Amino acid sequence: MSDLNPLIWPHSVTRVKGEINIGGCSVTSIAAKFGTPIFILDESDLKSRATIWQKSLQETFQEHAGDVFYAAKAFVSVEVAKMIKELGLNIDVCTGGELAVVAAANFPGERIEMHGNNKSETEIAQALDYGVATIVVDSLQEIERVSRLAGLQGKNQQIVIRLNPGVEAHTHEYITTAIEDVKFGFSIASGAAWSAVTEIAKSPNLRLVGVHSHIGSQIFSSEAFDATAVKLLEFLKRYKDENRVELPELIIGGGFGIAYVESDQPISPGNLLRQIHKVVLTNCERLGLSIARFSIEPGRAIIGPAMVTLYKVGTTKEIKLKDGATRLYVAVDGGMSDNIRTSLYDADYTAVLANRDSIATKRDCRIVGKHCESGDVIINSILLPSDVEPGDLIAVAATGAYGRSMASNYNHVPRPGVIAVQSGMARTIIRSETTSDLLALDIAEGAKPIGERS
Amino acid sequence: MSDLNPLIWPHSVTRVKGEINIGGCSVTSIAAKFGTPIFILDESDLKSRATIWQKSLQETFQEHAGDVFYAAKAFVSVEVAKMIKELGLNIDVCTGGELAVVAAANFPGERIEMHGNNKSETEIAQALDYGVATIVVDSLQEIERVSRLAGLQGKNQQIVIRLNPGVEAHTHEYITTAIEDVKFGFSIASGAAWSAVTEIAKSPNLRLVGVHSHIGSQIFSSEAFDATAVKLLEFLKRYKDENRVELPELIIGGGFGIAYVESDQPISPGNLLRQIHKVVLTNCERLGLSIARFSIEPGRAIIGPAMVTLYKVGTTKEIKLKDGATRLYVAVDGGMSDNIRTSLYDADYTAVLANRDSIATKRDCRIVGKHCESGDVIINSILLPSDVEPGDLIAVAATGAYGRSMASNYNHVPRPGVIAVQSGMARTIIRSETTSDLLALDIAEGAKPIGERS
Repeated sequence: MSDLNPLIWPHSVTRVKGEINIGGCSVTSIAAKFGTPIFILDESDLKSRATIWQKSLQETFQEHAGDVFYAAKAFVSVEVAKMIKELGLNIDVCTGGELAVVAAANFPGERIEMHGNNKSETEIAQALDYGVATIVVDSLQEIERVSRLAGLQGKNQQIVIRLNPGVEAHTHEYITTAIEDVKFGFSIASGAAWSAVTEIAKSPNLRLVGVHSHIGSQIFSSEAFDATAVKLLEFLKRYKDENRVELPELIIGGGFGIAYVESDQPISPGNLLRQIHKVVLTNCERLGLSIARFSIEPGRAIIGPAMVTLYKVGTTKEIKLKDGATRLYVAVDGGMSDNIRTSLYDADYTAVLANRDSIATKRDCRIVGKHCESGDVIINSILLPSDVEPGDLIAVAATGAYGRSMASNYNHVPRPGVIAVQSGMARTIIRSETTSDLLALDIAEGAKPIGERS
Repeated sequence: MSDLNPLIWPHSVTRVKGEINIGGCSVTSIAAKFGTPIFILDESDLKSRATIWQKSLQETFQEHAGDVFYAAKAFVSVEVAKMIKELGLNIDVCTGGELAVVAAANFPGERIEMHGNNKSETEIAQALDYGVATIVVDSLQEIERVSRLAGLQGKNQQIVIRLNPGVEAHTHEYITTAIEDVKFGFSIASGAAWSAVTEIAKSPNLRLVGVHSHIGSQIFSSEAFDATAVKLLEFLKRYKDENRVELPELIIGGGFGIAYVESDQPISPGNLLRQIHKVVLTNCERLGLSIARFSIEPGRAIIGPAMVTLYKVGTTKEIKLKDGATRLYVAVDGGMSDNIRTSLYDADYTAVLANRDSIATKRDCRIVGKHCESGDVIINSILLPSDVEPGDLIAVAATGAYGRSMASNYNHVPRPGVIAVQSGMARTIIRSETTSDLLALDIAEGAKPIGERS
């Protein structure tokens, strides 16, 4: 069991007669029934992580606990949206497409929040039509648009303003700066945030209820969130001073880190929230604020560790390295089309030989895909049994977030499906693409003069 | 016209009454008819580039001219495959999916070559069934597979062996090394290449006709190709010495650079091929070889500059920078889902305000997308008229290669379509996705015990 760190793998993962089982289903039976590559969602793992965030927020912040918004951008499908709905969490979407998916799950509008730095008027109208509870506004132009479109519908739309607190966080480090050279939000330091508040106040169709920030991803400690909370509270204090009324909502965003490899040491939801709560309490007291509701937006932290990608090995090749050592290239039947994170973010992952135990000594391997590109790497360096061979199955852990959601058809490789497993039962929640799917958008339209309407 | 460098933009691009026209179609009429974002293919530009490569190869190498294989991985659709077919070029595919697309264009099997470091047995069988002329073999395991599957069909399959010449090329530089730590090919220096030749000789179902290499991408000079040609010829010399017969085919791959920005200075096909031809001639003479056929595989160099992405501006936002300067963030209605190259390869692009002329002074802008991610940038820094505003159209040049072909549905953003324009006529060749396409793979299957066959 030593090769299955419970911090990295879904809760239900175990080896049975040498073979990896997930949700009581063996990987060979999964491969036989659903093919490879395939994303496998451990349904109870997802549910327990979602519940832990919900419970931790409630236990820590008590009467000040706001909502846990599941960040759909990490991964969403109709079935996953249904799970989140049934667990009682809220959800955040950032496009009309994500809204369409959660709408197909009949997700209640009053539990949806909409993000985005460049929502189209169509998307804003869709959100208003659907009764999305909160729109997080991100630019002066958007304030005008939401106000105008809400007015057309005779609505008074609840909004939150996205702030740029000048805190930038990455994994173990964060920097505080007056300036953030990013596309999101209104800078507090530059005065842009206050101008936005002033602009919002002019509209009879907008009801500002609070502030929001999102400071990064894969964050492993509370300090950056603490610093952000202070900046947001100070902004809320200014609001109170000038308006003699408090804004009740403080949303600290997401970005809570997960373990991809042994060296990743994520902080537990409880410990993280207790630390932030302390800072919020202290500063509310200092500033004379009675912050009513504190909300968070975990995405990766809920779905990331709950999913595993299962691949089949196609070819292996030994390469001599400069220092005289050798490296085994293990090529699987997917690649950068189903996992772009390794090449895009230099991300690291954990993998195991999944269909059998091996007593062979372990050796340095590079897991690569089948794309026509040298950068098509899934794991740059990992120890695998030296007898790994074509036909073997490889399981890669923690691929739930930004895996299937960023998948492409590069090289016309069909995107893998997603199955949900639990108690020895399996079901498809996103079907694998076929060759006819690849050709579905290809059409041979007759050319027409550009002026002519079709 | 000064803002439309003909090295960067498709041949037909011009400004008419201040507005960009491509293939005689104005961008506002394109946006009105097809929506944004949209990829626009200048059909005559593609055809003239394809023809130039074909002619240059024939004029330079004359009786030794082999084939121009269009590298489908850069971008392919059924209609583009038809264009390539009608121009008389060959095509290379690297997956069953790419083969399915060219098959839908009735591309003749005798003009197709199949690449790939990890072709599945299904893909190899598909290639054999279709009568793909040449399979480029990439591992010992694949040699066994192609041999076995060809045997089952009673075929003697023509193959080429992919070599690792120890030359690694990037843009202006290249390195020669005995070792290439990549997944592709058989190393010449390590002896792996010769072992592969020995293995191939044992099979009655395989007919080795030559050698192949592909050394990098965006290469701007001939030196790396020259060095590669020498390595391949020396390998062919060894083959001749040991077998008393020459292998006729030498395929030098692709990777010919194009201009994305002013500072990119690609070498012309004619100059590049003349230089390589000189090296091939000299070395054939030195080695006593009569190299029969020399082939190339341009992909990006044909399709890259022929396509433009048209976006609509949604929001603009001014950010104060540390040095007191300001930057205008211009957010368009696409982003990293239709162009991952900026974030993936740190690639640079050229863009213009497309729907109108402006006499406003230019200022530093960052063109970003609509995705919920700070890294969602299309161009990090570019001068645009300072009056650029929501509703304006932005055209980004040279997006034909690895743009639409690597597109994703990140954030459930529908992938843009591709239209082909020529002489004032426009037609869809890949339709834009809709919300129902986004939901097409979402299914709610009932869970079944994993042992039970569905």
